[in-house]
Amino acid sequence: IHEPHSFQPTSLSVDAHTLQNQIDELSSFSDSPAPSVTRVLYTEKDVLARRYVKNLMELAGLSVREDAVGNIFGRWDGLEPELAAVATGSHIDAIPYSGKYDGVVGVLGAIEAIRVLKRSGFKPRRPLEVISFTSEEPTRFEIGCLGSRLLSGSENLANALKTTTDSQNVSFLDAARSAGYAKNENDFSSVFLKNGTYSAFIELHIEQGPILEDEGISIGIVTAIAAPASLKVEFEGNGGHAGAVLMPNRNDAGLAASELALAVERHVLESGSIDTVGTVGILELHPGAINSIPSKSHIEIDTRDIDEARRNKVVEKIHQSAIQITKTRGVKLSEFHVINQDPPALSDEAVIKAVETATRELNLSSKFMISRAYHDSLFMARLFPMGMIFIPCYKGYSHKPEEFATIQDMSNGVKVLALTLAKLSSQ
Amino acid sequence: IHEPHSFQPTSLSVDAHTLQNQIDELSSFSDSPAPSVTRVLYTEKDVLARRYVKNLMELAGLSVREDAVGNIFGRWDGLEPELAAVATGSHIDAIPYSGKYDGVVGVLGAIEAIRVLKRSGFKPRRPLEVISFTSEEPTRFEIGCLGSRLLSGSENLANALKTTTDSQNVSFLDAARSAGYAKNENDFSSVFLKNGTYSAFIELHIEQGPILEDEGISIGIVTAIAAPASLKVEFEGNGGHAGAVLMPNRNDAGLAASELALAVERHVLESGSIDTVGTVGILELHPGAINSIPSKSHIEIDTRDIDEARRNKVVEKIHQSAIQITKTRGVKLSEFHVINQDPPALSDEAVIKAVETATRELNLSSKFMISRAYHDSLFMARLFPMGMIFIPCYKGYSHKPEEFATIQDMSNGVKVLALTLAKLSSQ
Ligand SMILES: [Mn+2]
Ligand SMILES: [Mn+2]
Ligand SMILES: [Mn+2]
Ligand SMILES: [Mn+2]
Repeated sequence: IHEPHSFQPTSLSVDAHTLQNQIDELSSFSDSPAPSVTRVLYTEKDVLARRYVKNLMELAGLSVREDAVGNIFGRWDGLEPELAAVATGSHIDAIPYSGKYDGVVGVLGAIEAIRVLKRSGFKPRRPLEVISFTSEEPTRFEIGCLGSRLLSGSENLANALKTTTDSQNVSFLDAARSAGYAKNENDFSSVFLKNGTYSAFIELHIEQGPILEDEGISIGIVTAIAAPASLKVEFEGNGGHAGAVLMPNRNDAGLAASELALAVERHVLESGSIDTVGTVGILELHPGAINSIPSKSHIEIDTRDIDEARRNKVVEKIHQSAIQITKTRGVKLSEFHVINQDPPALSDEAVIKAVETATRELNLSSKFMISRAYHDSLFMARLFPMGMIFIPCYKGYSHKPEEFATIQDMSNGVKVLALTLAKLSSQ
Repeated sequence: IHEPHSFQPTSLSVDAHTLQNQIDELSSFSDSPAPSVTRVLYTEKDVLARRYVKNLMELAGLSVREDAVGNIFGRWDGLEPELAAVATGSHIDAIPYSGKYDGVVGVLGAIEAIRVLKRSGFKPRRPLEVISFTSEEPTRFEIGCLGSRLLSGSENLANALKTTTDSQNVSFLDAARSAGYAKNENDFSSVFLKNGTYSAFIELHIEQGPILEDEGISIGIVTAIAAPASLKVEFEGNGGHAGAVLMPNRNDAGLAASELALAVERHVLESGSIDTVGTVGILELHPGAINSIPSKSHIEIDTRDIDEARRNKVVEKIHQSAIQITKTRGVKLSEFHVINQDPPALSDEAVIKAVETATRELNLSSKFMISRAYHDSLFMARLFPMGMIFIPCYKGYSHKPEEFATIQDMSNGVKVLALTLAKLSSQ
């Protein structure tokens, strides 16, 4: 009875109504008013959301454990529990004023996929695990995919976390402890997963792009994840009174930042590829008063590409522009820091095959595609065969309150995930 | 004995050491670490600083009263108390991370000038009043010279204050009440001064520019105050995920703001006059996350000139640029608000004459100059004959922690102020 072909794929039934209710309920743990969601790592709302997820896992019959940074694992022991498990999951943190589907569909949807399989009478050969990763978003500590990056064995990150602080000078350690984690650890290498822990990892996620919706396709099968680089830049000038310092005597750190922001856009467009993107999401001026010339500016830049070399060339050009701006404006480049510059990841052939077969057996349209956003899958791919399942979302919107996926599309995604898990757990 | 020529100007003695100590002590009421000063309207630190000033006024023998918004008046009744008084004063609020001399020299220095006159045995014919104006800086409610603007009879402001809120949505009324003001008032027209209340107003202030220091001159005699305009601009775009939204599909409100900031600089330089200045001191992005395309931006612009028409032309060009940017970037100009656009002010001939004579009698070098920063004097000039006394400050620095004036220069300024008050009170 544990063979996936021992039950009718088309008879798998998703309780999409309950899933939607759970998504709505989870979105209420937010520090900004609905429909926006703001759920930042280790805040009170994050802790409440974590409790909600653990509770759902338990209700689905999964045994729950958490590691030192709060990655949550819900396990269904298979018929051969000593085998490497098949894992699936995503994240539930949400950047300020974003939406309720990013990440959440891949956590609550994975728990529903487990329930689907249980209702169908399926018994997995390999164990199945649902993971809710800690801090996929870089909001609080400027580290994206913190949980999965650590699981993948990043010594750099394990070291950095000993001294990392947020913008309010709260240490990572204190923040984690306030949320009930890191009780005894000072060294987060305890979190690292061993090679071979999972036979495969698969993540369900909204596309965060418009392609599936535009083309009327139900399922995206991800073949590669674009490579992100994050930069932090600071300029310093002399500041002064907005009325009293004449224009030729100024070295305005704010205008330096504005010039660099526009240079980021220019360098990205110069790549000539539609796959190159770059964004200045953070630009802050000091002291930030209408009658003060900015004496300091801080900008954070995100640039991505599916071609690592091309992206690194953009980073280099941004650096050159920053240096050029110091010369023309007489400001100091007090920081040019590459926060991270990760390589892209390719999906595993066998995982792609399993998703593709599942999609076909379920009579759903599908297409191969690239993930331009990065995901915890990028880091899980460092240790395990990885794949991703995309579902359409409204106008491709993400990271804003208008983010939306239909019940039907979520239901399709969960069905494909359930069947893929069934297949992979039997391999 | 009340004639100014009845005592020797050169024998006036300033206790500059005590004045310096008071300036240092006042700077400790700050919400940022020394040497920077941050003292924002109606905060706890502002209330403590106000108590300090009132206490010094009382110790100097002045009778103290406050109006509904917290303008503080310390009065020395003259030999003919029914005559219009001669007033002097400045402000003690400080923008974030600024210095300890801006405004403060004109308040604590005025109280010292009163002590100087008392020590010399002088008795004024007209009453003398020292004023500490409420919120010269626009930090909290985006209204510069709030106190003096209201004193000068601004119906617009009296109306606006009924509904004004700060960025935290605290109403002006609640904020004022929390500081002990506006107890019974809902209508701030009670604050308006009557025409003829003062026979003259004179303000002592650091230059906030480098001219006096560069040229080795002790006293600047202000002949005109440049005309400030303040603008608030907001752009709105669609936002979205920094990885997923391709460049051609973006309408980035942050880049729109950066373009406008650089356009402000360009339009100011196009005026061709050294007297035209423009500054973007505030530029904020929403939601402000490294992996989110800005969906909103907010910028505040300050532009000034001694030529009102030329300045208004810059404002008009900025508006045109903002509209142009909405077209090229596909963003919405959700706000373009002229917060204020005040006319310049000329100093009064008789007041200039009194300062000039005082300077000469004290054997101090002086020069006529323009104030490029605006001051409470700009508004007092609407009702009363106005003049200003500038003293040198280090490198012309202001609005930053490095702001500095020597004890000798402050002592000279206080002496000139004392003698000018003596002269004006006898006229
Ligand atoms: Mn996200
Ligand atoms: Mn996500
Ligand atoms: Mn100021
Ligand atoms: Mn001032």
